[in-house]
Amino acid sequence: MDKLKRNERIAGIMYILTTNPNKVFTYGYFSELFKVKKPSISGDISIMKELVVKLDIGHIETIPGANGGVRFSPNMRKKDVENLLLEICAELSKDERLIPGGFIYMMDILYTPRIIKNIGKIFANEFVKNDIDYVVTIETKGIPIALMTAEILNVPLIIIRKNMKITEGPAVNINYLSGSNKTIQTMSLSKRAIKEGSKVLIIDDFMRAGGTVKGMKEMMREFNAEVAGVGIFISTKNPEKKLVEDYVSLIRLEKIDEEKNEIILIPNFKQLKQFR
Amino acid sequence: MDKLKRNERIAGIMYILTTNPNKVFTYGYFSELFKVKKPSISGDISIMKELVVKLDIGHIETIPGANGGVRFSPNMRKKDVENLLLEICAELSKDERLIPGGFIYMMDILYTPRIIKNIGKIFANEFVKNDIDYVVTIETKGIPIALMTAEILNVPLIIIRKNMKITEGPAVNINYLSGSNKTIQTMSLSKRAIKEGSKVLIIDDFMRAGGTVKGMKEMMREFNAEVAGVGIFISTKNPEKKLVEDYVSLIRLEKIDEEKNEIILIPNFKQLKQFR
Repeated sequence: MDKLKRNERIAGIMYILTTNPNKVFTYGYFSELFKVKKPSISGDISIMKELVVKLDIGHIETIPGANGGVRFSPNMRKKDVENLLLEICAELSKDERLIPGGFIYMMDILYTPRIIKNIGKIFANEFVKNDIDYVVTIETKGIPIALMTAEILNVPLIIIRKNMKITEGPAVNINYLSGSNKTIQTMSLSKRAIKEGSKVLIIDDFMRAGGTVKGMKEMMREFNAEVAGVGIFISTKNPEKKLVEDYVSLIRLEKIDEEKNEIILIPNFKQLKQFR
Repeated sequence: MDKLKRNERIAGIMYILTTNPNKVFTYGYFSELFKVKKPSISGDISIMKELVVKLDIGHIETIPGANGGVRFSPNMRKKDVENLLLEICAELSKDERLIPGGFIYMMDILYTPRIIKNIGKIFANEFVKNDIDYVVTIETKGIPIALMTAEILNVPLIIIRKNMKITEGPAVNINYLSGSNKTIQTMSLSKRAIKEGSKVLIIDDFMRAGGTVKGMKEMMREFNAEVAGVGIFISTKNPEKKLVEDYVSLIRLEKIDEEKNEIILIPNFKQLKQFR
């Protein structure tokens, strides 16, 4: 690469750090890439640290030592989190979303990258201090949010299957009680999916009684993995007593009334660190 | 926000454009955000246009007119595409990945954000000129790659289900012949998922005979949507005659020999625009 001017180099470092969230880059990496000495890079990083604070997009952390370097953790402004969750609640409350049987049509929200990237940022910010090794979800609708969270935490995603698939080799199976139809179901995960002793973050799109998440926690026990957090996009108000405790849910579904064509959703701001 | 210095502003614009690929931002947006006049922004954009070329990370396009503005389309260097696909082939060819029945364990590759983000970039670059409105995939293993492609193209993802789900309302069902087990299966998509007249890009992780992709194409006909591209991560050499033509496959599976414990995979460089 041609040698860059300082403002170009700063923009270049900005690009590398922000498009690779939570990945550690050494000063040596930038020094080699941009063909300048480490003290210059160090100066650039100081400018950048202030800048991400001014822009209010997250923070840059310097990690000392031999394996040290610099890492960017994105974050959403409190005001933007508020607006996003309020907008999602308003959108999902529209009566045309009501599906007979007491369900809400929400695939357009769950599968739109622009929206779920921000949901992923909220979850990542909530659990980034927990040293997560994997994000774990169960197919299907929670996968996009879980993947965005995994991308921002810079860890692999694990997808638990609802059917035993021959194509993934020997697997661990867990029976669980699905909240939505009260039947015993089976979830399955390849034996080689998770290393022993890992710390995992469970992410799912929807929780009613919590049977599925409870099953996922049991599954993690089988892998000797520690559940270091549970993040749920939407949880229902009822039943109030869930089968799992200790979860962060972004939105609470207060009520679905099919007769009155009414859906009420409320953001759970108080569950988030930023708002406490 | 406090008024920024020019090098800070350039880094700020870099952040906004590169973390929102293929989204159009007006000069007015930046002018308001950074509290400077449009000609200054225009100057910044000129610097940035040159810079992304120097950094070789994609290109910035200026769109004239009332709805005009500026947009960043990321791209991978030819050399990086080569290295990535060669590394994936080498990794997936390891004999411990062989699963009885002639399958390859590849979830760790398919679900690692750092890797599939780049696969998404390759697909997005291949089809970005086709005015894609949605990326369409079928559950489960192709979802992460499809989502990354959708994110980079800045369009929603559509996930076709393999089971008719009551929770998504009225749906269109299609029967199709699955290549891996030669049985008739059903795929299902909510009637309100896709607007009529849309252009879609089909993305899937694996193709043998092409029965599943053929089914997805039939599904798109039911929605009066045009298939403007098909991208497959890995396709098999045999059968040579697939049920669909006109697809881009990144890697070809030449051979799986269970007795000899041998897997051979080869990148399909020549299918990519960059290499032609």
